[in-house]
Amino acid sequence: MSGIVELPPSPISATIDLQARGVHHGFLRLPYSRDDSAWGSVMIPLTVVCNGNGPTALLTGGNHGDEYEGPAALFDLAQGLRAEDVSGRVIIVPAMNYPAFLAGARTSPIDKGNLNRSFPGRPDGTVTQKIADYFQRYLLPMADIVLDYHSGGRTLDFVPFAAAHILPDKTQEEAGFAAVAAFGAPYSMRMLEIDAVGMYDTAAETMGKVFVTTELGGGGTATAKSIGIARRGALNVLRHAGILQGSVETQPTQWLDMPGTECFTFSESEGLLEPLIDLGEQVRKGDVLARVYQTGRTGVAPIEFRAALSGILAARHFPGLVKSGDCVAVIGTL
Amino acid sequence: MSGIVELPPSPISATIDLQARGVHHGFLRLPYSRDDSAWGSVMIPLTVVCNGNGPTALLTGGNHGDEYEGPAALFDLAQGLRAEDVSGRVIIVPAMNYPAFLAGARTSPIDKGNLNRSFPGRPDGTVTQKIADYFQRYLLPMADIVLDYHSGGRTLDFVPFAAAHILPDKTQEEAGFAAVAAFGAPYSMRMLEIDAVGMYDTAAETMGKVFVTTELGGGGTATAKSIGIARRGALNVLRHAGILQGSVETQPTQWLDMPGTECFTFSESEGLLEPLIDLGEQVRKGDVLARVYQTGRTGVAPIEFRAALSGILAARHFPGLVKSGDCVAVIGTL
Amino acid sequence: MSGIVELPPSPISATIDLQARGVHHGFLRLPYSRDDSAWGSVMIPLTVVCNGNGPTALLTGGNHGDEYEGPAALFDLAQGLRAEDVSGRVIIVPAMNYPAFLAGARTSPIDKGNLNRSFPGRPDGTVTQKIADYFQRYLLPMADIVLDYHSGGRTLDFVPFAAAHILPDKTQEEAGFAAVAAFGAPYSMRMLEIDAVGMYDTAAETMGKVFVTTELGGGGTATAKSIGIARRGALNVLRHAGILQGSVETQPTQWLDMPGTECFTFSESEGLLEPLIDLGEQVRKGDVLARVYQTGRTGVAPIEFRAALSGILAARHFPGLVKSGDCVAVIGTL
Amino acid sequence: MSGIVELPPSPISATIDLQARGVHHGFLRLPYSRDDSAWGSVMIPLTVVCNGNGPTALLTGGNHGDEYEGPAALFDLAQGLRAEDVSGRVIIVPAMNYPAFLAGARTSPIDKGNLNRSFPGRPDGTVTQKIADYFQRYLLPMADIVLDYHSGGRTLDFVPFAAAHILPDKTQEEAGFAAVAAFGAPYSMRMLEIDAVGMYDTAAETMGKVFVTTELGGGGTATAKSIGIARRGALNVLRHAGILQGSVETQPTQWLDMPGTECFTFSESEGLLEPLIDLGEQVRKGDVLARVYQTGRTGVAPIEFRAALSGILAARHFPGLVKSGDCVAVIGTL
Amino acid sequence: MSGIVELPPSPISATIDLQARGVHHGFLRLPYSRDDSAWGSVMIPLTVVCNGNGPTALLTGGNHGDEYEGPAALFDLAQGLRAEDVSGRVIIVPAMNYPAFLAGARTSPIDKGNLNRSFPGRPDGTVTQKIADYFQRYLLPMADIVLDYHSGGRTLDFVPFAAAHILPDKTQEEAGFAAVAAFGAPYSMRMLEIDAVGMYDTAAETMGKVFVTTELGGGGTATAKSIGIARRGALNVLRHAGILQGSVETQPTQWLDMPGTECFTFSESEGLLEPLIDLGEQVRKGDVLARVYQTGRTGVAPIEFRAALSGILAARHFPGLVKSGDCVAVIGTL
Amino acid sequence: MSGIVELPPSPISATIDLQARGVHHGFLRLPYSRDDSAWGSVMIPLTVVCNGNGPTALLTGGNHGDEYEGPAALFDLAQGLRAEDVSGRVIIVPAMNYPAFLAGARTSPIDKGNLNRSFPGRPDGTVTQKIADYFQRYLLPMADIVLDYHSGGRTLDFVPFAAAHILPDKTQEEAGFAAVAAFGAPYSMRMLEIDAVGMYDTAAETMGKVFVTTELGGGGTATAKSIGIARRGALNVLRHAGILQGSVETQPTQWLDMPGTECFTFSESEGLLEPLIDLGEQVRKGDVLARVYQTGRTGVAPIEFRAALSGILAARHFPGLVKSGDCVAVIGTL
Repeated sequence: MSGIVELPPSPISATIDLQARGVHHGFLRLPYSRDDSAWGSVMIPLTVVCNGNGPTALLTGGNHGDEYEGPAALFDLAQGLRAEDVSGRVIIVPAMNYPAFLAGARTSPIDKGNLNRSFPGRPDGTVTQKIADYFQRYLLPMADIVLDYHSGGRTLDFVPFAAAHILPDKTQEEAGFAAVAAFGAPYSMRMLEIDAVGMYDTAAETMGKVFVTTELGGGGTATAKSIGIARRGALNVLRHAGILQGSVETQPTQWLDMPGTECFTFSESEGLLEPLIDLGEQVRKGDVLARVYQTGRTGVAPIEFRAALSGILAARHFPGLVKSGDCVAVIGTL
Repeated sequence: MSGIVELPPSPISATIDLQARGVHHGFLRLPYSRDDSAWGSVMIPLTVVCNGNGPTALLTGGNHGDEYEGPAALFDLAQGLRAEDVSGRVIIVPAMNYPAFLAGARTSPIDKGNLNRSFPGRPDGTVTQKIADYFQRYLLPMADIVLDYHSGGRTLDFVPFAAAHILPDKTQEEAGFAAVAAFGAPYSMRMLEIDAVGMYDTAAETMGKVFVTTELGGGGTATAKSIGIARRGALNVLRHAGILQGSVETQPTQWLDMPGTECFTFSESEGLLEPLIDLGEQVRKGDVLARVYQTGRTGVAPIEFRAALSGILAARHFPGLVKSGDCVAVIGTL
Repeated sequence: MSGIVELPPSPISATIDLQARGVHHGFLRLPYSRDDSAWGSVMIPLTVVCNGNGPTALLTGGNHGDEYEGPAALFDLAQGLRAEDVSGRVIIVPAMNYPAFLAGARTSPIDKGNLNRSFPGRPDGTVTQKIADYFQRYLLPMADIVLDYHSGGRTLDFVPFAAAHILPDKTQEEAGFAAVAAFGAPYSMRMLEIDAVGMYDTAAETMGKVFVTTELGGGGTATAKSIGIARRGALNVLRHAGILQGSVETQPTQWLDMPGTECFTFSESEGLLEPLIDLGEQVRKGDVLARVYQTGRTGVAPIEFRAALSGILAARHFPGLVKSGDCVAVIGTL
Repeated sequence: MSGIVELPPSPISATIDLQARGVHHGFLRLPYSRDDSAWGSVMIPLTVVCNGNGPTALLTGGNHGDEYEGPAALFDLAQGLRAEDVSGRVIIVPAMNYPAFLAGARTSPIDKGNLNRSFPGRPDGTVTQKIADYFQRYLLPMADIVLDYHSGGRTLDFVPFAAAHILPDKTQEEAGFAAVAAFGAPYSMRMLEIDAVGMYDTAAETMGKVFVTTELGGGGTATAKSIGIARRGALNVLRHAGILQGSVETQPTQWLDMPGTECFTFSESEGLLEPLIDLGEQVRKGDVLARVYQTGRTGVAPIEFRAALSGILAARHFPGLVKSGDCVAVIGTL
Repeated sequence: MSGIVELPPSPISATIDLQARGVHHGFLRLPYSRDDSAWGSVMIPLTVVCNGNGPTALLTGGNHGDEYEGPAALFDLAQGLRAEDVSGRVIIVPAMNYPAFLAGARTSPIDKGNLNRSFPGRPDGTVTQKIADYFQRYLLPMADIVLDYHSGGRTLDFVPFAAAHILPDKTQEEAGFAAVAAFGAPYSMRMLEIDAVGMYDTAAETMGKVFVTTELGGGGTATAKSIGIARRGALNVLRHAGILQGSVETQPTQWLDMPGTECFTFSESEGLLEPLIDLGEQVRKGDVLARVYQTGRTGVAPIEFRAALSGILAARHFPGLVKSGDCVAVIGTL
Repeated sequence: MSGIVELPPSPISATIDLQARGVHHGFLRLPYSRDDSAWGSVMIPLTVVCNGNGPTALLTGGNHGDEYEGPAALFDLAQGLRAEDVSGRVIIVPAMNYPAFLAGARTSPIDKGNLNRSFPGRPDGTVTQKIADYFQRYLLPMADIVLDYHSGGRTLDFVPFAAAHILPDKTQEEAGFAAVAAFGAPYSMRMLEIDAVGMYDTAAETMGKVFVTTELGGGGTATAKSIGIARRGALNVLRHAGILQGSVETQPTQWLDMPGTECFTFSESEGLLEPLIDLGEQVRKGDVLARVYQTGRTGVAPIEFRAALSGILAARHFPGLVKSGDCVAVIGTL
């Protein structure tokens, strides 16, 4: 009681009724006064499909605006899902951080906000903080299961995996891993989040929700194959939750771990990156993962970056140029 | 005599002797006065390896600044090639349009110049035109064989191929295709250039040079695999030319054609691109190559783009978002 | 004592004595260290005219930097008002958010601050927050009556009106409406502020001040006619307050209300805006207010926006292009 | 004959057949390679309505991208005009300088090109020059009568008029004035172009075409009234040309002249502009047209600008701030 | 206990052991996720030289990124200082606000943070606030004596001086002035900080550290002479602290005071600045320090700025143009 | 006759009569249509003082916009010179490239034009080319003697000198050196221009004019001392020409030469610049002029730049950071 600050209501309003039966398409309207529109708004597209009795699934893409498997699967699902196939409710937001999505960028062009580091958000904060607050206080509480799509964006590339976090509540953890298995990506990850502050994942998990995240590729693109994984994963998760009928379409998966900071290699130089090992290939401790060439002159030997442990190459820096401090490679252990 | 305009000398000077025996690393120095450096210069890294008798090969990358297989192979070659292994001369410019390369962009941030559309250039033009003019009047005339690396850059992705042009001089054409075969990429292309105006390729071919170009991937990155193709291709071409000893390391290749404008599909809408066919996959006439979702709202069916002829998917739009007028897909015929 | 945080003094200082008799022109100097001036300042022009006994009026323009009736009337008044005509004090700040005013923009180019959403401000905040804090803690407490000029700015256009808020203290409310009537604009508005957080209006009203605001046009311009309304209004308000002698120059006015959210129409599409009803014209519920054409192609029927209630068109989106989420039209009821 | 340079064909291609009977919607596709789309294009929307026998009218808007009466009337006409109502051909390009139109700016954001100063253009020039060249060599030659919509854009405002030029060929001049009269704007102007270099008008008139231009408002917006003038004017011109049946809808008009440089008043100071006379009002020689306040401080008398001749205020500077060198006012004579 | 908020640990980690004997070069790595590097970092170069027993000196440059004497002296010292010459520890950070230093700007290009106004910082704040927090909670507590280099940056120029603050603890104050005397700059300043909020100086002094700051020139450059003063000063301070052996290299110095706001002259106009007195020259009260010409027209007499007290010209505005609110001149008293 | 292209008249007009007796202040008005002013102009301030009989001197500053000695001396002269003191005519343009001057930049922000490389200009070119053309065809032909002020701007710094060129016409050359001697700067330079293309100097000299240029400091600032040299130089040149009465105020000067490319040292690395020799100091061949520190890490020895010949340090790179290709130092020989 003491110490509780009563937050003002969110300035965001949904243009459709989130409880109404049937298929409804609308927007989360966020008033945003600015130089080029004094009484303007950010309009975040939204679909709700509601029918019969059953749990609520919250499906989101575009948490980072340059990751495309989720938006592609969800814009498709939003226009194809029929109310009569649903028992419960499916809330679909294909592009959570819509300004970032429109800009094709990880963060919002309005406030440079990284939505996945902005939770629990603020109703009187920046645009990105207002979006986080709305999910925190309005949408997440409605959900039983949450599926949030990610991939590497323009600057990272991943082997395709679904993931859930190692959690203190082992029942909740188990439910998460079961949903990951249902998703059916080629790889599945048990994630130990070292720095969980501000994440949507943490917000959902703290409320006790089953939370599934993914990394399905990267580079600021998506392929027929990676979107196929995303689309099948959504249907599988909805079947697993009992919202869609039918059994999960089982797929073989390889479970991976990222045990600690040794998995990550950071560059201490800038230059032209030459990977020597590609995604999904095996790595032994001591292997040269990549080399960096100084670009200011020819005739200089490149700097080598070596693996600190064995496993497979699970992620890598995507652009051809690398800056000091960039993550060059991530090794996943089997 | 009549109609000939005497061009002034290039303002670019090489800081090393292009004729000297041995391995020399230096720069093409291009004076460039600007707000942040009144007496500044663009410094384009350059290596010349010269020994014994033999032809001259001119090897170039970074014609477009966001294509990395060439620069990676050539910065490596420049620091590893030994004079005693060479018979003749190898001139290496890993990043022709150096300002674009440093910016990680297709075109120069200085003048937005697309170097490969700037030939023959002008000694008193923009920075990009001055670079073109220097290659046109100084470096190309020195060369017997020219290898210019390309890939799709940040916005296109290609199956990996080397290519030469269909030319009026069939002897020259034949020499080009032979060099392509020596290069040894997974695919090889016979290109019919419909609009050759301003290209480096055209500049070299008009002088009668053997000219090999490539498209080795794209997306603004390079992989261990694609750089491996580039590196092997350079050595093969130098062996083929007799500048390096030893026989060409033969590789299987699939020859392709791009017969006409039907190969190209352009989007007439903007939105979120969902490819339905991936690079290298077979395409039949009428297949849906890709779909575009309107991103301003949910609940709208996507627009479909269908193949106008059969073949394989040779290139595609890379970023997850597409604009009206972008090339969505290119089909190569077998 | 409990819960009260002692705020540090404002970093802003007035270069003139705000209490001195006579006419004084100076600045509010706000120290602002930045890349292009390590020891620079924002200099907000200020005039104080003080004489005899009487109340203090605080007259402000440029709360939003792209609204010009207020600045034009106040720069004029500041250079023409004579001390001997005043009984009391007139504090004139023609351009409150001076950086925004210089930029011709609604918000400050320094911090994107919307001054009218920044109250009560912070002495250690951004530049805009420092300005708000200075008005909150130094200037507003000196005032008995406050007149703050607005119009639609570059992106909205209004029928010309003065306005006061519906307030819980009916005596204060009555005083506000009386001052609005004295102002004498063609329209007069009784405003019910739904979201009053951060407004200058609220800051003044909470202190019990009589507060008059206006909307006198828009589009980022002003006309001879709209400036005439502003100039006459200032003199009328000063006469009404007894600071200037003489009786109010009476004008006919039409009182309007904006009863609720139905008054506002927001676009859910982007495109080319075609208004079908102009400012001040009568609207019946169901009328098409405006149409939006998709600009990416020809041959598509426009989207229509219809009136949700009857009244007159009181405000409208100004630029020719409209974005999703923009306010297209506002209806005032009679 | 000697001295004629054969121009290469335009890189622009129409995606529809410009000769085909019926109503066809498509694009002028202009290949435009750039950092964010290596094989991208500018897509300029286009509609052609062709039926029976009769002359060809070329109707264009968006020559300057921030002028909206033309685009609004023409996007409407393009989606509403029926082939069976046409005798001849109507070619409609609602937004000639499409990149400028999308940006809401006078000039192209790509090359800062002012299309109306870019004629005759160049097929190998900038994007704007390529557009000019296509109209010069492909579309204008097809036309018998040309109607090009203008208004003041974001920085000027005009009384609404249609206009034709005073020409050396008096027959052609007469045909132009007749078409202006048919258009039926509230004002009609006989223009004496002092500097006609690079204008679309000049390009058309030099080919002997009947050319009507307009100025229908400004400020970067359009109203129901000004779009109404534009729409009626297009239909009237098509009726006048015999392409649409029925007689011209006659309107009263006031003919104006702009005899010389005395009509124009330029500011020699920057500051806050206070107009003292509004559009359409009468002006006598010596009247103060406007005043400019220095914005850096209060207490300084404004600078006055006086009329150099008598007439009506035909145009004025629109934004509230003015820079040295801006045109403050234009007087038309009766 | 009550009121204490436990701060989370800093996200910054040192890549070297700050306690290890010997000379170690590494980085302060600050994770910084952004559009162009999802898992990127800011890498702040760092050297620690540790040997034997003795105090710890913390030497910093680049607190403001456009001040070069400190970085030049410290990059030199970092690569030349030998462990065997040290008794105690020297922690060298040549460029504290590294993003600002790389940009050649006073403040960080990432968040516009002025590091010297960001203390005590926040571990969950902006990049600049995170740097401040790391110095506040990790590096400053390790130090016995702190030397922080400043000069005027791109927009101010100073006579060369070292300085310490007038402090309430006179023993600490004395130690500061003694270290200033040891530094041995041509001028020495007793500073009375009027507004010390947010400064690194204040953070160090509040912990009881001996703190020496400098102003050694300015204009965004450094000279052989000014760097010589910086280099000798560092060695002198280390000798004075007993970390380096040998006696302080004594230099004559002129002590100055800046007693109050009268020392500072601010411009109330913008224009072209003509200094009439140069740095280090004597000033008498009433002298014209500088004149400002209006640049919009010729033929106007300049505005004069006069000295409010006598002394020497200790600092001045550097760029040729001046804006309203800029500090034009600072007078130091003898 | 053949080959001569008749150029159109300049679009620039002077707002004052360049031939009229007395002192006249006005503008060169250059119409410049752009997004923020459809009918805007560039207004270049101009003063003409004309009286009696005598030669015409053309005095110019701001050829590069970040060089301030000339503008300061000329704005002062323009407002102080009396007609009765003049025999002949003095045309004063304190800021030739006025847009660059207003931006405080070397080149024009409009078109990035370096005015001193834009001669002879074009009446239908960019804004900078139009300015060049106006001087080429209108102002230079009126002049007998031309004095054009330069200094190093923001990125270079010079010892103060006046200079004239070594010319094929030895009478003209002699007249130039005599005017340089009259100017009376601390240094005087005999310049051998290696690349004179596009320079104002060349334009004037080709017409046979006596042309004096200067380099009077740099860094984007001016001092009381350097402006004093500029002011005295102008008066001396006018006395030398017989336009002002009285004898030249003689000053000692040191003549210098820059015999060839060996005088110039260019950096081949980027980093932090440490000068080891200051302006005006003696240099012996082989001396280390400056060192460059890599800024990406500590612990690396700097790169040294050595003098290629003996003399004095006549110019140097000004900013603290240096890029590859920048001119680090210029040696003048005695």
